[in-house]
Amino acid sequence: MNEFDLIKRYFNPATQPAVADLGIGDDAALLTPRAGCQQAISVDMLVSGRHFFADVDPWRLGYKSLAVNLSDLAAMGAVPRWFTLALALPAADTAWLDAFSRGLFHLAQLHGVELVGGDTTRGPLTISIQIAGEVETGTALTRCGASDGDDVWVSGVLGAAAAAVAQRTDALQLAPEMLARCLDRLEMPTPRVALGRALRGLASACLDVSDGIVGDLGHICERSGLRAELFAESLPVDPVLGALPLATQQKLALAGGDEYELCFCAPATRREQILHLALEHDLPLTRVGRMLAPLAGAQAVQLVDGQGAALAFSHGAFDHFGA
Amino acid sequence: MNEFDLIKRYFNPATQPAVADLGIGDDAALLTPRAGCQQAISVDMLVSGRHFFADVDPWRLGYKSLAVNLSDLAAMGAVPRWFTLALALPAADTAWLDAFSRGLFHLAQLHGVELVGGDTTRGPLTISIQIAGEVETGTALTRCGASDGDDVWVSGVLGAAAAAVAQRTDALQLAPEMLARCLDRLEMPTPRVALGRALRGLASACLDVSDGIVGDLGHICERSGLRAELFAESLPVDPVLGALPLATQQKLALAGGDEYELCFCAPATRREQILHLALEHDLPLTRVGRMLAPLAGAQAVQLVDGQGAALAFSHGAFDHFGA
Repeated sequence: MNEFDLIKRYFNPATQPAVADLGIGDDAALLTPRAGCQQAISVDMLVSGRHFFADVDPWRLGYKSLAVNLSDLAAMGAVPRWFTLALALPAADTAWLDAFSRGLFHLAQLHGVELVGGDTTRGPLTISIQIAGEVETGTALTRCGASDGDDVWVSGVLGAAAAAVAQRTDALQLAPEMLARCLDRLEMPTPRVALGRALRGLASACLDVSDGIVGDLGHICERSGLRAELFAESLPVDPVLGALPLATQQKLALAGGDEYELCFCAPATRREQILHLALEHDLPLTRVGRMLAPLAGAQAVQLVDGQGAALAFSHGAFDHFGA
Repeated sequence: MNEFDLIKRYFNPATQPAVADLGIGDDAALLTPRAGCQQAISVDMLVSGRHFFADVDPWRLGYKSLAVNLSDLAAMGAVPRWFTLALALPAADTAWLDAFSRGLFHLAQLHGVELVGGDTTRGPLTISIQIAGEVETGTALTRCGASDGDDVWVSGVLGAAAAAVAQRTDALQLAPEMLARCLDRLEMPTPRVALGRALRGLASACLDVSDGIVGDLGHICERSGLRAELFAESLPVDPVLGALPLATQQKLALAGGDEYELCFCAPATRREQILHLALEHDLPLTRVGRMLAPLAGAQAVQLVDGQGAALAFSHGAFDHFGA
């Protein structure tokens, strides 16, 4: 099978939504942007052994490769429209490609996004997806709009993805059924696209939790020129972790990157609306902190207990080039 | 240096054109598309040891990584506007990053394109750039518009990039000065963006020569439902190869992928206009073949001599998964 056959066979299914005017097969795809919208553009690169275990199920890898990009658009409040795929493969393994592409297109179809271009080459297993979405001009959720006094919210529950990683690195021992549910969370995160759309006009700032909530909230602080308090006891820990010691649950909820939940800020006047959204989307939305004016010498994100007393926390954001 | 410092230091220079409404630093970039235009989207992935030699000069690698994408947009007749960069690096080598990013932004500035997003991670050296350009709706150059009887043209001169590769693989011995000039062509190709723009309304089909002219012209044949004759003796061989035997020159000109010249079709009535373009752009434009109606049993692309007699040619397009 050559490169062109491979693309035809696995990456050009008849089931694709017809978003593009001209799709795969030319020097570039051609697309007509929607009037009155800005485009939101994001890119991710996943490397075997770093972002995923080399033995991960390929269907799930295909799913997750797109999910992480959809999550970035969700955090902007954008409707995802099209994506490209750059794929380096050690070999043209047909069973792997079949499963990978099915996982990818399963999620693509759910969100009506079209694969409009790609590049396939031989090399160490590396996946890069770039995605484009559209959001009505001026309504995008960014990291820089939070105000002093805003509440900090997070969607869903946290910690299970981190637990699955901790198990693989022998830092934790989970019962088999518990592990399976944690792996589901790690390998098949749900991008919160509908929630992101609903937060337009409501949230003052938003991002997706991909490096751990402490580090991620730190990005909002930096871009908004504020600091934040994070309520340790309010963090919504995944119930699957209920059998673990409380301190471990909290640590996992704090450290967990790879959750792809949305962390957002909103004025206190919006609490009722936000709790209504939680019902509407059948998704927990939990108030986990508040934004504060900057203070010389204070940490950007301070973990506090139920009495507002500062707690120590040493886990920063995940850093690919850190020590 | 951590991942965030690395991005700030090397990939967010003050000299960037302000194409984006919101650039690097959020979950996604925000951009306003031009009214009346379609977008042209393309992606490439370059892997160390496959698309470039591991010891290549990093400035040149940065330049070329963007050049190959600009070339795809040139082949569509589009104006390049923004790009994203996904980069896996074995280590955060500051000297390498400094040179790589300077080479990249040198070319980006020449074309007024902005780096609007990226992902940097540790891994085997892999570079993926995705680019977006804009072209007035309905005027893009595709591979599927050629007609029976159209001339086939190619820009520039061919063979030098292939010669540089052949030298590295010991298939050829070039004199040092000759090698240097061939390496310039291989490592710093000029994307033919202005020519692509000028060909709108003139060329019936167009692509860039990235896999060798025989294979690339084959793509136009397939998409246009035609076959082609390629005039062996008309191929514009790079004068730097003048000292080599004629047969070697021809072989290099035919086999040369990595040339990033434009190959395009146009009706014979356009010859004068095209030769005028050559003068205007100070760039050779050579008529190298013609498109023909399909014929059962005939090769898609047939190499012919000066008398129109068929010549054998065994080199197909470069195929990353071929034997």
